[in-house]
Amino acid sequence: MATSAVCPYFHYAAQLIGKRWTGAILYALFHDHHRFNDIRTSIPELSDRMLSERLKELEAAGLVERHVYDDMPVRIEYTLSPKGKALEPIMDALSTWAANWVIESDLTREH
Amino acid sequence: MATSAVCPYFHYAAQLIGKRWTGAILYALFHDHHRFNDIRTSIPELSDRMLSERLKELEAAGLVERHVYDDMPVRIEYTLSPKGKALEPIMDALSTWAANWVIESDLTREH
Repeated sequence: MATSAVCPYFHYAAQLIGKRWTGAILYALFHDHHRFNDIRTSIPELSDRMLSERLKELEAAGLVERHVYDDMPVRIEYTLSPKGKALEPIMDALSTWAANWVIESDLTREH
Repeated sequence: MATSAVCPYFHYAAQLIGKRWTGAILYALFHDHHRFNDIRTSIPELSDRMLSERLKELEAAGLVERHVYDDMPVRIEYTLSPKGKALEPIMDALSTWAANWVIESDLTREH
């Protein structure tokens, strides 16, 4: 029987956004947290090591740009690229769904 | 400095959708694959064991309903609950973003 295969581009997108902490980091970037410590502070459970790893992945995936400013001390900022900014409808749809459907007991279930 | 924390409901939603294979399984359910073998066949790399595990998780999360029909042999179908159907705007936004922004080399990068 012929069967439509799941689109590999869709599959890639879902796993990219949903990778542990990635959604939360993108959320922080969308909400004007641009410096490493600001992002980390906005996600209490996130370690420095994990944030650093995820930012590198997001940079490699072309979603995040790293800017180094020649201040004293050097200032580094992370911003969303056009490809990253284009995630806004997904972030909005996720926020709406979460507000309407996720209940407190969901948060404590193992997943 | 006060800093807005990432919404735990959003975080839950992102991780739920993005868990390995979950996005693809939801995609299959949205595209009218309702029986175990139909879903599995539409996702070539997915094993029986993994599909079974993910369907149980989606049922526990209230996104998927399992229906047993008293045919001969017994017929089992999986459908989206209202909570699951409400994911449609997210699935659409993900598909649109993937079609516009994901390039072939993204698919081969480790992530």
